[in-house]
Amino acid sequence: MKYAIIGTGAVGSYYGGKLAHSGCDVHFLLHSDYEYVKQHGLQVDSCDGSFHLDHPHVYSNTADMPKADVVIVALKTTRNHLLATLLPPLFHKDTLVLLIQNGIGPEAELQKQFPDLYLAAGLAFICSSKTEPGRVNHQCYGSINIGNYSCKDTRIMDQLIADFNQAGVKALEVEYREARWKKAVWNMPFNGMTVVMNAQTNQLLANPATRELIHRQMMEVIGAAQALGVQNIDASFADKMIDMTLTMTPYSPSMKLDYDFHRPMEIAYLYSHAIAEAHTVGYSMPCLEMLEAQLKFLDVSNS
Amino acid sequence: MKYAIIGTGAVGSYYGGKLAHSGCDVHFLLHSDYEYVKQHGLQVDSCDGSFHLDHPHVYSNTADMPKADVVIVALKTTRNHLLATLLPPLFHKDTLVLLIQNGIGPEAELQKQFPDLYLAAGLAFICSSKTEPGRVNHQCYGSINIGNYSCKDTRIMDQLIADFNQAGVKALEVEYREARWKKAVWNMPFNGMTVVMNAQTNQLLANPATRELIHRQMMEVIGAAQALGVQNIDASFADKMIDMTLTMTPYSPSMKLDYDFHRPMEIAYLYSHAIAEAHTVGYSMPCLEMLEAQLKFLDVSNS
Repeated sequence: MKYAIIGTGAVGSYYGGKLAHSGCDVHFLLHSDYEYVKQHGLQVDSCDGSFHLDHPHVYSNTADMPKADVVIVALKTTRNHLLATLLPPLFHKDTLVLLIQNGIGPEAELQKQFPDLYLAAGLAFICSSKTEPGRVNHQCYGSINIGNYSCKDTRIMDQLIADFNQAGVKALEVEYREARWKKAVWNMPFNGMTVVMNAQTNQLLANPATRELIHRQMMEVIGAAQALGVQNIDASFADKMIDMTLTMTPYSPSMKLDYDFHRPMEIAYLYSHAIAEAHTVGYSMPCLEMLEAQLKFLDVSNS
Repeated sequence: MKYAIIGTGAVGSYYGGKLAHSGCDVHFLLHSDYEYVKQHGLQVDSCDGSFHLDHPHVYSNTADMPKADVVIVALKTTRNHLLATLLPPLFHKDTLVLLIQNGIGPEAELQKQFPDLYLAAGLAFICSSKTEPGRVNHQCYGSINIGNYSCKDTRIMDQLIADFNQAGVKALEVEYREARWKKAVWNMPFNGMTVVMNAQTNQLLANPATRELIHRQMMEVIGAAQALGVQNIDASFADKMIDMTLTMTPYSPSMKLDYDFHRPMEIAYLYSHAIAEAHTVGYSMPCLEMLEAQLKFLDVSNS
C-alpha cells in the first residue's frame, strides 16, 4: 500500500515515520521543514527506540505526490479548510483517508465535500512533540484506535491495521462513534479547563471543587453520547478516566500547548461540533457550553 | 439615633461619613487606620461634593463604643466570622443591624447566632474605593436600597431611611428577597467572570460568546429566584441588566479587585449560599456552579 502523510508534525512524523521505517511506501507532505528534511532526513526520538529516515519521500505540494491507498491526515483541525484543495491529487477511486484528529465530526465535515470518499478516524493515544525542524520526540504511549466511518472495502482497513502493527504501532479496530465520544469524555473537560484555569491535569484533580467539576463535565459528555445512542458508555467511564488521569504525570493537553504557543485552539471540533450534535437530539451540556464560550473569548486575543 | 459603623472602608466610610456630615451621631470602628483617623480625621472625596470630618468618633474596639440604635456592617463577608464577637457590645434590645454586604443570605447566617436581633439588608449601588489611610474616593452612584429582613419596629426602619435621605443619600425601602436576588442577577455573572477571564465588564459583553454566556448565567439566577418564589423578577430583567452594563464605563466588580489585590474572594455569599438555597427547591444553576468551582480553584493559590 502507498501511504501519504498530510501534516508531518509531532503526530504525523511519528506514525508515518514508523510505517516508513518498517518498509512501507510512505510519502510525506511538508511545509516549513521541507528543505531541511529533504537534505537531512527525519529523526524520531522515541521511548520505543529512536530511528532516522535518511531519505524519506518528501514533497512540498500534493500535486507532486503519487496517488495513495491511504492518506493519513495529522493536521490540527484548525487547518481543515485546506483539505478541499490539498487532498484531491492523492485520490484514486478506493483511497482511504484516515483522520488522526481531535474532536467530534471531522469525518462528517470532510464527507460533505467528498461524498464517495472512504473515511476512517484514527484515535491516537500518544505523547509526542516536535522539538526542532525534522525532529520529533515520542515520549510515551503511541497506540492508535481506528474507527471505520465510511470505508466500504474492509481489505484496506485490515491492511492498514496490519501495517501499523508490523511497524510496532499497536492498532486496533474500534466502533467509530463509541471511540470518538469516549475520547471526548477526557478531551472536552481537560483541554479547555487546563487553558481557562492555566493549570495542568494534576492540579485540576487535586482541588476538590475542580475535580468535581471535571467529573460533572465528563458526565455531560456521557449523557450526550447516550442521548445520541452511542453504545458501551456509562457513568463508570467518568470514574475510570479520572482514575487514569490521576496515574498520569502532570499533563498539558494539546489545546493548552496551542494556547501557550499562541496558536488557534481547536474549539470547533473539540467543542462546537459536539455541542451541536447533542443539540440535534435536544441534549445540552451547560458546563461544556460555558467552557466553549470562555475559550472563544480567550482565543480572540491570543492568536 | 445613634449609629455604629463596622467596617470603615470604601463603603462604610462613605455612608457613615455622609450621616455624620449631616449631623447624625455616628461612631466608627477602625482597624488599621485607627491612629491615623483619630489624628487627622476622615476625608471623603465625592462626585457629589467632597467633605472632611475633623473629629469623628473613632474606636479600635467595639467594647469601647456606645450602644447603637443602628449598626451598619460594611465588612466584606469573608470577615463575617468576626461579627459574633464584634457586635454584642453594641446591642440594646431594639438595635437594628443593617448589612451592606454582597450576596445571598448574610442576614440568615447572622440571625442564627442572634435569633432576636433586628436585621435588614442594605443594597448599595456605589462606586467607591479607599485611596489611602483615612481617605475614600466616591466616584459615582451612591444610592442604597434597604430591605427589611427581621426588624419588627418599623419606626427604626423609617428613621434610618429618613436619616439617609436628609444626608443626601438616596435610600428606598424595597422587598428583601426581591432586592437581594435582583442584585445577584448582576453580581453572580460579572463578579466571577471578570476574575476567571481576567477582563472587565465591557470586554465580556463585546465578545458574542461571553455575552451570551453572561445572559445564560443571569437567566440561571432568575430561574432560581422564581423557583424560590421571589416576586417581580422575570427574563426581561436580564436584558435590562445587560443594557445597563453596556452604558457603564468599563468596570471591575469588587471580586475582581479582591482577586487582583490578593484578598480572599467572597465566594461563599456571592455563590455558595445562593446555590445552596436554590438546591433546597431542587433548582440547579450549572454555569454558576461551574463558575463557583473555578473561583474556588483560583482562590486557593491567590491569597
